[in-house]
Amino acid sequence: MAETKIPYKIYLSESEIPQKWYNVRADMKNKPAPLLNPGTHKPLTAEEMSGIFCSELVAQELDNETRFIEIPKEIQDFYKMYRPSPLVRAYCLEEKLQTPAKIYYKFEGNNTSGSHKLNSAIAQAYYAKKQGLKGVTTETGAGQWGTALSMACSYLGLDCKVYMVKVSYEQKPFRREVMRVYGASVTPSPSMETEIGRKINAEHPGTTGSLGCAISEAVEVAVKNPDYRYVLGSVLNQVLLHQSVIGLEAKAALDKYNVKPDIIIGCAGGGSNLGGLIAPFMGEKLRGEADYRIIAVEPASCPSFTRGKFAYDFCDTGMVCPLAKMYTLGSDFIPSANHAGGLRYHGMSPVLSQLYADGLMEAVAVEQTKVFEAAEEFARVEGILPAPESSHAIRAAIDEALKCKETGEEKTILFGLTGTGYFDMTAYESYHEGRMNDYIPTDEELASYAAKLPKID
Amino acid sequence: MAETKIPYKIYLSESEIPQKWYNVRADMKNKPAPLLNPGTHKPLTAEEMSGIFCSELVAQELDNETRFIEIPKEIQDFYKMYRPSPLVRAYCLEEKLQTPAKIYYKFEGNNTSGSHKLNSAIAQAYYAKKQGLKGVTTETGAGQWGTALSMACSYLGLDCKVYMVKVSYEQKPFRREVMRVYGASVTPSPSMETEIGRKINAEHPGTTGSLGCAISEAVEVAVKNPDYRYVLGSVLNQVLLHQSVIGLEAKAALDKYNVKPDIIIGCAGGGSNLGGLIAPFMGEKLRGEADYRIIAVEPASCPSFTRGKFAYDFCDTGMVCPLAKMYTLGSDFIPSANHAGGLRYHGMSPVLSQLYADGLMEAVAVEQTKVFEAAEEFARVEGILPAPESSHAIRAAIDEALKCKETGEEKTILFGLTGTGYFDMTAYESYHEGRMNDYIPTDEELASYAAKLPKID
Repeated sequence: MAETKIPYKIYLSESEIPQKWYNVRADMKNKPAPLLNPGTHKPLTAEEMSGIFCSELVAQELDNETRFIEIPKEIQDFYKMYRPSPLVRAYCLEEKLQTPAKIYYKFEGNNTSGSHKLNSAIAQAYYAKKQGLKGVTTETGAGQWGTALSMACSYLGLDCKVYMVKVSYEQKPFRREVMRVYGASVTPSPSMETEIGRKINAEHPGTTGSLGCAISEAVEVAVKNPDYRYVLGSVLNQVLLHQSVIGLEAKAALDKYNVKPDIIIGCAGGGSNLGGLIAPFMGEKLRGEADYRIIAVEPASCPSFTRGKFAYDFCDTGMVCPLAKMYTLGSDFIPSANHAGGLRYHGMSPVLSQLYADGLMEAVAVEQTKVFEAAEEFARVEGILPAPESSHAIRAAIDEALKCKETGEEKTILFGLTGTGYFDMTAYESYHEGRMNDYIPTDEELASYAAKLPKID
Repeated sequence: MAETKIPYKIYLSESEIPQKWYNVRADMKNKPAPLLNPGTHKPLTAEEMSGIFCSELVAQELDNETRFIEIPKEIQDFYKMYRPSPLVRAYCLEEKLQTPAKIYYKFEGNNTSGSHKLNSAIAQAYYAKKQGLKGVTTETGAGQWGTALSMACSYLGLDCKVYMVKVSYEQKPFRREVMRVYGASVTPSPSMETEIGRKINAEHPGTTGSLGCAISEAVEVAVKNPDYRYVLGSVLNQVLLHQSVIGLEAKAALDKYNVKPDIIIGCAGGGSNLGGLIAPFMGEKLRGEADYRIIAVEPASCPSFTRGKFAYDFCDTGMVCPLAKMYTLGSDFIPSANHAGGLRYHGMSPVLSQLYADGLMEAVAVEQTKVFEAAEEFARVEGILPAPESSHAIRAAIDEALKCKETGEEKTILFGLTGTGYFDMTAYESYHEGRMNDYIPTDEELASYAAKLPKID
């Protein structure tokens, strides 16, 4: 096992951390559709956006042309605290599976936020700071994004207001506590601090909240306070841009050993990790320089790629945010309460949606018991305890490796291991106790949500 | 901040992972005192030990002469999964403190066990496997050691029986669940599975257990079952030997940049991390090749070095284990229930005890509110969320750096960051809520425990 030329972990040196983000939109023939103003249904202008987002981020959001965007030195410095992240050769997993496939994973969980979310959090916080703002607002469900943003804000001395879905706030006190370590204010949503929160509390006494409601509260606070802006951890073009560091590093590490992946696999909720991981590979594919099979993995209980519509839809359940053209299940679709495996967003990044619509990538949906089975198999041989979200990619990677075992093909598989599962032990517990089952929405259910999609010409 | 020759993180390459452990005892003029048979008070023979420990580990426990001991290839392979661990230059902390001191820390938390414990767990599990045993037994309190051992056993296909203090089992269900991911059986102690467990349950109905009782159960199961042995995560000579990889890597990384620490700081409970971190530096000191200030940091609520006696004592509360000569507070000393900061062991590694008695190292005791203050200060600038145990070392490192600020001295400080605090958020919460206070045992209390120390000539 050790007599190989490729080490278990390929680390880049500090000087090899990317100094530019790669903007895959520059190489896309069909650009992602623009965000629309929810009132007028016309493309959102930079001016309209700048009340919600920082100016520099608005520019990045709208920039479909610039191929490489300089990473400011301050962000590079922050990256040095936890990057480059390791690219791991999964020797032990390969041996366990007895597969001729060569499996690599890019591990983004080696930081306190426990996921790749920090890559964009620091960028968004930095531009807010640069613009002279006092702070940022955001929502968080399970808390990975909220933690990442708290860390970034604490580093830059920026105020961070997190609206956390009430049920998560109560059931995940540890995540909340981590955010407090980093000085964030964490408010259970719906709160009595905002108009929309008071309205929802009045209409639904005792509600335990939803991500859509938390978004609405965070946006309201940002819009009403000129010193604050709203930030978001996925879906947006700017987020995929920042996350391109994942793919750039992965590619640089593989290039060192002249390894070319045949298959690239990532889990997909809003698409931030997958979009980042595949960026430079997709770029080569778009420019006709190389070919890769690229697979998005989503939960069978929230199957936006595989069973959703490619249409304009609201980004939030509250329907106050802009409309995005994306694969969507409908903005009020919420996966079954039994679903523990993350990736609960009803829509998908417009960039990835366009690439998928253009046949440049594939998608599979997997059931959560199979996901946790893969997670545990992986943990026992590779050591790392994966997040449920990341384990979707593990499931698909194992499945592809087992196909190679059948055919005898020595394919090279690269997958994104987005994070660790330390705060997801209740989900593991329900798996161990046999309480976890697989809920797959029926065609009728999905059709009823799809029927409510906004009609946009 | 970035225009420096020394990177944020100094990683060694895979081929630079130590291939031998360093046995500091070989360089000690005054060897650590031998373990004694609790019945006869005579030095424990290899034969007596081999009913409890694997033969190879018995040999390592008794070997005071061999300076370097080969690390078996299988263990080296496992180390490659999570080592080398980074040596980090704490640029952000230095800037925050505005100190001329140069601060480095060796971070051992980048693995799923969340601490350095894995370094010895894999070694102990390996030798058990090699001896053809079916499994190992152990006890765990907070669960770091139990998690590390579960991971090692899962990797090697060895059965792992963990006796977890009942109160922790109930209050820390997530740790228990992590161990289950790795296939360990986790039993709340006292259980009804062992004689001692049934006895304690009968005598103290409703007891929530203690570490001492869990040790007794784990030892009983190992001794009664010839296919099992008992393993321990700290205190023993063999554990310090395995943990020398920490110091060897740290020294190799510093040597690359010709950096020589003036002060080396580690937290000390049973001494496994501190003993490992300082090993090669202490070796130089013992051989007269270099000098270092070495500081052990312990909780003021469990101050074995600073207020304990250097005497023979039982290693467990149940007084069934061998006697060790060490700094001890008495085997039935238990720190205040209010104490959240780990490092609760009543005694201390015999190796470190001897070195301390010989004036080769110093010790300080710190109060837990000061420890959590340091933890939070560190987290906010360095990103990593430290374990309470590790934060004792952070506290002392910050204090030394602040002294440098006063005097203007540019000292180089190296400290051990043993692990992460993801499973310690209730302790952080009590700190945030102002419920944490400092309990320091009185002289009278300590004297009453000391009076009960066994009388050994």
